[in-house]
Amino acid sequence: MTINVLGYASTSARAPLVPYNFVRRNPRVDDVVIEILYCGICHTDLHYVQNDWGRSSYPLVPGHEIIGRVISVGSDVRRFKPNDMVGVGCMVDSCQNCSSCTQGMEQYCQEGPTFTYNSIDRRDKTTTFGGYSEKIIVNEKFVLRIPEKLDPRGAAPLLCAGITTWSPLRHWRIGMGSNIGVIGLGGLGHMALKLAKALGANVTLFTRSPSKEKDARDLGADNVVISTNTKQMGAVNNKFDLIIDTVPYAHELNSYLPLLSVNGTLVLVGFPGNLEPTLNTTPLIMGRRSIAGSDIGGIAETQELLDFCGNHGITADIEMIKIEDINKAYERMLKSDVKYRFVIDMSSLREMK
Amino acid sequence: MTINVLGYASTSARAPLVPYNFVRRNPRVDDVVIEILYCGICHTDLHYVQNDWGRSSYPLVPGHEIIGRVISVGSDVRRFKPNDMVGVGCMVDSCQNCSSCTQGMEQYCQEGPTFTYNSIDRRDKTTTFGGYSEKIIVNEKFVLRIPEKLDPRGAAPLLCAGITTWSPLRHWRIGMGSNIGVIGLGGLGHMALKLAKALGANVTLFTRSPSKEKDARDLGADNVVISTNTKQMGAVNNKFDLIIDTVPYAHELNSYLPLLSVNGTLVLVGFPGNLEPTLNTTPLIMGRRSIAGSDIGGIAETQELLDFCGNHGITADIEMIKIEDINKAYERMLKSDVKYRFVIDMSSLREMK
Ligand SMILES: [Zn+2]
Ligand SMILES: [Zn+2]
Ligand SMILES: [Zn+2]
Ligand SMILES: [Zn+2]
Repeated sequence: MTINVLGYASTSARAPLVPYNFVRRNPRVDDVVIEILYCGICHTDLHYVQNDWGRSSYPLVPGHEIIGRVISVGSDVRRFKPNDMVGVGCMVDSCQNCSSCTQGMEQYCQEGPTFTYNSIDRRDKTTTFGGYSEKIIVNEKFVLRIPEKLDPRGAAPLLCAGITTWSPLRHWRIGMGSNIGVIGLGGLGHMALKLAKALGANVTLFTRSPSKEKDARDLGADNVVISTNTKQMGAVNNKFDLIIDTVPYAHELNSYLPLLSVNGTLVLVGFPGNLEPTLNTTPLIMGRRSIAGSDIGGIAETQELLDFCGNHGITADIEMIKIEDINKAYERMLKSDVKYRFVIDMSSLREMK
Repeated sequence: MTINVLGYASTSARAPLVPYNFVRRNPRVDDVVIEILYCGICHTDLHYVQNDWGRSSYPLVPGHEIIGRVISVGSDVRRFKPNDMVGVGCMVDSCQNCSSCTQGMEQYCQEGPTFTYNSIDRRDKTTTFGGYSEKIIVNEKFVLRIPEKLDPRGAAPLLCAGITTWSPLRHWRIGMGSNIGVIGLGGLGHMALKLAKALGANVTLFTRSPSKEKDARDLGADNVVISTNTKQMGAVNNKFDLIIDTVPYAHELNSYLPLLSVNGTLVLVGFPGNLEPTLNTTPLIMGRRSIAGSDIGGIAETQELLDFCGNHGITADIEMIKIEDINKAYERMLKSDVKYRFVIDMSSLREMK
C-alpha cells in the first residue's frame, strides 16, 4: 500500500514553503494511519525551515503539533481504531530500551528519539515528514488520545507548547501552594500560565511589556512583574519554587536568581545556546538554587497533560490559518504577532487538490 | 564574668596574622563556654584576612573549624556539660524563625546566619571572633557533639570542608548505586571522596593532574578522569547523578555537563562568582540537567555528619601546625601545598602566654 500525500515543504534554507507531493513510508503492523485535521505552528518549525541549527535536510515538511482522525490501523494495533481523534507531537519513535525510555522519558532517549520531521526512521531508514500534510503514519506507542471534550483545534499546541511547559511543572511537583514564575508571554508562556494556574499554583508573569498585563491576568496570572523594574523585582525576592523561562533567545538571568526560594529552580525551555551575560553563581550557592533545562516531555506525560486539559477545559489560544498563508504566518510569528499560536486548518490543503 | 582571651588576628588586608588579646562577649544563660583545642584552616579564612570579598572588618580573628572542650555552661543549657568534646562550625546563630531555620537549613536563614567570625552577634551587637583563639562562647543550639571514637584533630575540618560536601551528597540523595563525580582534590575534594565512598556511591575524581591518581584512589575514588583528556571525558558521558565541583576559581564547566545523567546535577560548592567561559544551555535542556550551588550545611545535618563519621571512622587527612606558623601555612595553602587541611594545635597558643 503506497500512501501518496500532499504537503507543504521547504526546499532550501532561503525558499518559502511550497506545495509538495511525497510518498509516506509503508505502514507496519503496529502503525496508525492518521488523516491530519489541524497542525500547530511552532518556532522550531521555522528554525528547521531556515536551517538555523545546521541540521536541516531538504525537502523538509515541518509540523509537530498534529491533530487528526485515525483512518486505519495495523493488525497489531490494540489501542486505536478508525475514526478515533488522535494527536502526534514531536516524536514518532525511540529506542524503547534505554534507561530514559523505560522510565517514560522518551524525549531523553540515550540513542536520541526519532523526531516527527527531519529525522531518520529507525526501522526502515526513510526520512520523517511532519504535520503540514494530509496524512501521517505513526507507531501506536507515539499516538496520543485526544479527549472528546477537548476542542481539537486548540488542542494541537498542547502537543509541543503544552507538554514543554507541563513537563517541568510536573517534574518539580508544582501544585496547590506553589509559587511559580513564567518569563515571556508567547506560545509557551501562555500555556505555562494556564497550566500552572489549573494545578493550583500562585502564578507570576515576568515581562518587559506593561501592555501584556491584562492578557496575562486573563490567562491565569495572579501577578505581573515588569522585569526591567528593579523595585518590582526586589519585591518578589526569595518567592518562587520554580521559574519557567520560555524566552527563545539569550537574555539576562542574574536578576532572576535571587527571586528563587531556597531550593528553587529556574528552568530554561526555550533557549539552547550560550548564556549572555554569564551567570554569577553566588545566588545559587547562597540558597541552593538551580538552573536547569527541560525538553518537551514523555509520551505518558503527554497523555496525562491531554487528559488533564480535557478535565479542566484547557486549550491553547489560537489563530486559525489556511495553509497557503503559512509564509505570512511565519513572518508574523517572527514579530511575535500572534495570540498565541497559529494552527493550520488542513482542510485548506485538501481543497487545493 | 569577663573572658579575656589570646588569639591571632589580622589587623588589615595586607598585614600578617599576629597575636591579639581581646574580650569575649559575656556568656548568656543558653551559652556554652569552650576551650579550643584545635582549629582547621579554611580558604575562606584567607579570603577574609585579605578582604577579598570587601566585607572584612579588622581586627579579624578567623577560624570556623573548631574543636574544643566545654569549660562551663549557662543555667539554661541542657545538652552539654563541662568536659564534653564539642565542635563549632561556620555559624553561631540564626533567626531561628524563618522558613529555612525552621527546616534545619540555618545556612540559608532568610535574615542571614550569624557567622563565627567577622559577623555581628544578633543579640548584643558585638563582633564575632573565630577559632584562632583560646576560648569561644556559643549558643548551645550551634554547638555540635563530637563522637568519642573520632580523633578530634582530624574531626576539625568536618565542620566546614566536611559539611560543605556532605550537605549536597545528602540533599541529592547519594547512596548505594549512585554515580558521583568530584572536581578538584583539595580540602573539600578529599572529604567528598571519603564521604561519597562511605555512602556506597561509585566515585570518580576529575583532576588535571595525573600525579593525583594514586592519592585519589587511596581516598576512595573508584575512577580518576583527567579532565583535559577528551577521550577519558567522553568515556563517562551520561554517567553521573551528581558532580560536586570544589574548584575555588572560575573554570570551564561546559565539558562536564554531558557527563551528567538525565536529571543529573552539577553542584558548585567552592566558587561564588562569574562563570567564565559562559555556559551553553543545550546539554541542560537535552537531559533535564541542572547546575546548582550549595553552601555549608544546617546544624542538624552537621551533627548527622559527625555521627556518620564516628560510625565509619572518617576524619580529614590533616597536617598539624603551631599557631606561630599560621602565615607560612597560608602561603603553602595558596600553592595547594597541603594534604589536605592544616589544623592548628591550640596548645601552641597557650604556650605563648
Ligand atoms: Zn515545537
Ligand atoms: Zn531510548
Ligand atoms: Zn570554611
Ligand atoms: Zn532564619
